[in-house]
Amino acid sequence: MSGISGLLDVVMKDGVRVITMTDIRTRNSLSMKMLEALNSAVADDSSLRCILLRAEGNVFSAGHNLKEIHSGNIESHRAVFESCNRLMLRLRSLPVPVIAQVDGIAAAAGCQLVAACDIVVASDTSSFSTPGGSVGIFCSTPGVPLVRNVPRKLSSYMLLTGSPISAQTAFTAGLVSLVVPKDKLEEETQCVVESIVSKSRAVLALGKRFMYQQAELTEENAYKAGADVMVNNINMADGQEGICSFVEKRKPHWTHED
Amino acid sequence: MSGISGLLDVVMKDGVRVITMTDIRTRNSLSMKMLEALNSAVADDSSLRCILLRAEGNVFSAGHNLKEIHSGNIESHRAVFESCNRLMLRLRSLPVPVIAQVDGIAAAAGCQLVAACDIVVASDTSSFSTPGGSVGIFCSTPGVPLVRNVPRKLSSYMLLTGSPISAQTAFTAGLVSLVVPKDKLEEETQCVVESIVSKSRAVLALGKRFMYQQAELTEENAYKAGADVMVNNINMADGQEGICSFVEKRKPHWTHED
Amino acid sequence: MSGISGLLDVVMKDGVRVITMTDIRTRNSLSMKMLEALNSAVADDSSLRCILLRAEGNVFSAGHNLKEIHSGNIESHRAVFESCNRLMLRLRSLPVPVIAQVDGIAAAAGCQLVAACDIVVASDTSSFSTPGGSVGIFCSTPGVPLVRNVPRKLSSYMLLTGSPISAQTAFTAGLVSLVVPKDKLEEETQCVVESIVSKSRAVLALGKRFMYQQAELTEENAYKAGADVMVNNINMADGQEGICSFVEKRKPHWTHED
Repeated sequence: MSGISGLLDVVMKDGVRVITMTDIRTRNSLSMKMLEALNSAVADDSSLRCILLRAEGNVFSAGHNLKEIHSGNIESHRAVFESCNRLMLRLRSLPVPVIAQVDGIAAAAGCQLVAACDIVVASDTSSFSTPGGSVGIFCSTPGVPLVRNVPRKLSSYMLLTGSPISAQTAFTAGLVSLVVPKDKLEEETQCVVESIVSKSRAVLALGKRFMYQQAELTEENAYKAGADVMVNNINMADGQEGICSFVEKRKPHWTHED
Repeated sequence: MSGISGLLDVVMKDGVRVITMTDIRTRNSLSMKMLEALNSAVADDSSLRCILLRAEGNVFSAGHNLKEIHSGNIESHRAVFESCNRLMLRLRSLPVPVIAQVDGIAAAAGCQLVAACDIVVASDTSSFSTPGGSVGIFCSTPGVPLVRNVPRKLSSYMLLTGSPISAQTAFTAGLVSLVVPKDKLEEETQCVVESIVSKSRAVLALGKRFMYQQAELTEENAYKAGADVMVNNINMADGQEGICSFVEKRKPHWTHED
Repeated sequence: MSGISGLLDVVMKDGVRVITMTDIRTRNSLSMKMLEALNSAVADDSSLRCILLRAEGNVFSAGHNLKEIHSGNIESHRAVFESCNRLMLRLRSLPVPVIAQVDGIAAAAGCQLVAACDIVVASDTSSFSTPGGSVGIFCSTPGVPLVRNVPRKLSSYMLLTGSPISAQTAFTAGLVSLVVPKDKLEEETQCVVESIVSKSRAVLALGKRFMYQQAELTEENAYKAGADVMVNNINMADGQEGICSFVEKRKPHWTHED
């Protein structure tokens, strides 16, 4: 186990990097140090197959650190939001899937962090909110992934009123991938992790990259680009191995290489 | 109370403008006069903090006035749709949140009007439809906010078949923010209004504007623009007041000024 | 009845073309021959009012034919994906609504085919998945309509894990228009078909075309274009007939002509 004292525990096992936020004292607030620690912790390496992001305590993350912002200046504020943006975009550009495991409150930039992961598994007692308006700081950046994940009437409601939504509503709305009973959270998360590590790193990397890319194209252009991606995928080593294993009715042996 | 006889009642109290459509005779159809009355009623002024749009009777609005369209010509038709577009885009560009309170039928352009508000609170007996195809006029403009609020397979179903959906399905699909029992509608709407008027007008204005703006950018550009908006928000008067009040554990006193 | 032996049955009755995939042996896999057969079967003609796509057996479609891909080369792979793209875009550009009736498994490109239809009616025992990653071929092209129909956290989950979702979850998520008990599937599908054939072909054609077109514009540009579409619609023969029939309280008699 490695980690950053008081902020993160980072454990790497069998290709899965489990990053646990441990700053219970600040409700895992996204202080400058926490953001930098997370940015470092999510670095890619070739043995990595999946990242699992979780938290100690009953708050996944309460969002930006308002005390730090209060004592800062424009330069430090800008640095915080740039580091935060870097983290969000890095999660998306990482070649491996990033799973958020949520068991508790995800508020403001904490809700943004959840929404910026690829897959979200939440306990049924979790809640999600963007309450920044109440303290005069509208959740504008949390709104970026929120409006891309949650239907407009609900995201507007969350942003303009600050009211929380339940895990069940978050599932219905599309903010979480799975909502499970609290006592099944570890088990269900593990199932998701296992289904990911059973696959080829190279194939998931290609697939994740195109998934986000094509979502910002017109549908016609997405299909055109998609045909190329499929042809390339079939003809890479793990594509060939996958099809052969299917036809030969055996387990595939991945190289995990592009 | 002011109003436009037979069309609208408009009441302003404590910064909340309540606009009630009262043209029960035409099922609150969006005639040229109704559209112009609504366009006037939603004008901004600096004391305004929230608009609540509701209706008398069991039809929120049945949509465009087909009798008027029948007796019109191309010029009058064009004028109707231009006025209607102006209203929809004005609701979105207003600096204050617009809440639709729906208790009954919202059909065709009436459904469009609902979908064009920021927040929708609906009674569980309400219904939503875009049945224009049945009378030879496809709900093309109602489809504009519909496809941006409701998943494609359901919006296609609504537009191509004209079949209504229930309030509960509308909530699941994302067309309404909250669905509540009919006898709780006033109370629940009031909660939403109160959470809005407890906040700074200037902060909500900035937040609402960016929320719609960023939704039409790529995610990366949205984050970039968002960092600027956050830094500006923190350094405006009500941003500073909000953070100070949080750190000092007291209620904020807003200036409501940009 | 016509058809393509072993692949499709095609029945045309009262303007409705019912296309049934009958290749149970390959689980209705989208082989090159099946794709070409479907591409031919969905051709438009002026008497056509609606297409209903269904399948024999308990697999709607298992997706691309992996054995065929295994024995093919880059040129044949490219041909398969180009034919598949052509089919998907043709369903969307057809002037008549296309309904998928799903009763069973829709996997990979089979799930894509469902998502590419305008309306989807599914039995409650159906399931939907994009499991290509398990055999080394990420469902990149199935992802194209998937991310446009299903919220991002659920589509990512489906694409990255390959896990299936139930018909009920598919309805909540927006991938299907209606989920009905298995023994009501024919009856409920028939209702959808009837509501479509009761309308004007020309009006639905105009409406369907604009529905997809405007979804890829900014909201403001969509409204602008929409006003023109509405004015044109009102002044076409079936627009005039529809409004007259409404005002005169009688059934409309459509010409079905542009």
